[in-house]
Amino acid sequence: MSDSNIRALVFDVFGTVVDWRTSISRQAKRFGGEHGVDADWDQFADDWRAGYGAGMARVNAGEDEWKTVDQIHRERLEILLDQYGFPDVSEAEIAEFNRAWHRLDGWPDSTSGLTRLKSKFIIASLSNGNVALLTNMAKYADLPWDAVLSSELAGKYKPHPLAYQKTAELLGLETQQVLLVAAHSGDLRAAMSAGLRAALVTRPDEYGGARAPDLKPDPEFDYFAKDFNDLADQLGCD
Amino acid sequence: MSDSNIRALVFDVFGTVVDWRTSISRQAKRFGGEHGVDADWDQFADDWRAGYGAGMARVNAGEDEWKTVDQIHRERLEILLDQYGFPDVSEAEIAEFNRAWHRLDGWPDSTSGLTRLKSKFIIASLSNGNVALLTNMAKYADLPWDAVLSSELAGKYKPHPLAYQKTAELLGLETQQVLLVAAHSGDLRAAMSAGLRAALVTRPDEYGGARAPDLKPDPEFDYFAKDFNDLADQLGCD
Repeated sequence: MSDSNIRALVFDVFGTVVDWRTSISRQAKRFGGEHGVDADWDQFADDWRAGYGAGMARVNAGEDEWKTVDQIHRERLEILLDQYGFPDVSEAEIAEFNRAWHRLDGWPDSTSGLTRLKSKFIIASLSNGNVALLTNMAKYADLPWDAVLSSELAGKYKPHPLAYQKTAELLGLETQQVLLVAAHSGDLRAAMSAGLRAALVTRPDEYGGARAPDLKPDPEFDYFAKDFNDLADQLGCD
Repeated sequence: MSDSNIRALVFDVFGTVVDWRTSISRQAKRFGGEHGVDADWDQFADDWRAGYGAGMARVNAGEDEWKTVDQIHRERLEILLDQYGFPDVSEAEIAEFNRAWHRLDGWPDSTSGLTRLKSKFIIASLSNGNVALLTNMAKYADLPWDAVLSSELAGKYKPHPLAYQKTAELLGLETQQVLLVAAHSGDLRAAMSAGLRAALVTRPDEYGGARAPDLKPDPEFDYFAKDFNDLADQLGCD
């Protein structure tokens, strides 16, 4: 397999670059404490995340106008605050807590691995998260993107092929010059169907045991790597 | 004047962040030498740049479908190669030379000033240049953008108000939380009309004497700075 043609690496973000579950759980625990609510905050994180796929699917199906992930998170959050028995919370506090998704920690290898990969390739996000969310997250988690790209710029959410193709177009590249790096085989398969290449990176702790992650090499993907530094080694980065 | 509300600085790029004229002249001289053509290469740079405004105006007026600045540069280049008496040049060589605009040097204070401003604010490009051009330029010239934003993402070129407003929207900010930094008063006035704030930074050498740059303080703008480090001082950056 030749990699001489790859010019850009684009990254799924939630779960692949950042540990959303631990980060949300920690912030939710603090928010709960401030409002006198106790709960299983890992479960709260999973419950918040659970609104994500359905919200995007409605947009892709044309049942909803475009909604950013910030808006999708917000709608789900209002339901959860009620379900978890939160008392009245001010608009300003809800808006601030909703931005918890802008403050997610990278995995231990994320900044160092991305920095190595950046020395040889264009590196960009390709997340369903909106540009504002991803830009704030990059500052918070020290993610050295060359460009912050998002499904928002295509007007369709992954796994719609336009989300992948628009990213290649914005980078001025052919789809086969772009490698999607993700911890989720469904995302990678959709990218390959859209003409991109694919690298599976394992994130065994994404769900903290709550769900089985993709951990096995799969010959349908171009690369299989333990983490970003392993991928940088395989791609010949210093 | 209070600056406590400013969250993001967005930058005009050609002339404000990078010295397009010297960079294009130098690359054109080399390209001419490879093809046995001698000319006034500063004039060649000015002539190439001269196609830019008209090409964008046709797009904004709806007379042309969307064209990227790469495409506008390319159309103008083909005319100039003929006018300057270039012999047959291969498609690959033309395409490569057209990417001269992806390889522009920053002004001496650009990287250091942007790095200081980045410590306190979100910093992003807001150029008519397309995302691919700006992304490649940022790697070439070491421009540490938090996000690469462009009129391309609005589907309208500056000075159309949508170009400014879409940038604020993508950053999740109100327009008055965004400060445009530019060396050109026309760009700044259009930004203010669209609700943004404005900082004039002087670039006395942009045109190398061929055209008078904006060098005087103007009370209609929120800030007036000699260069990016001066602006960083005024905005209280370390």
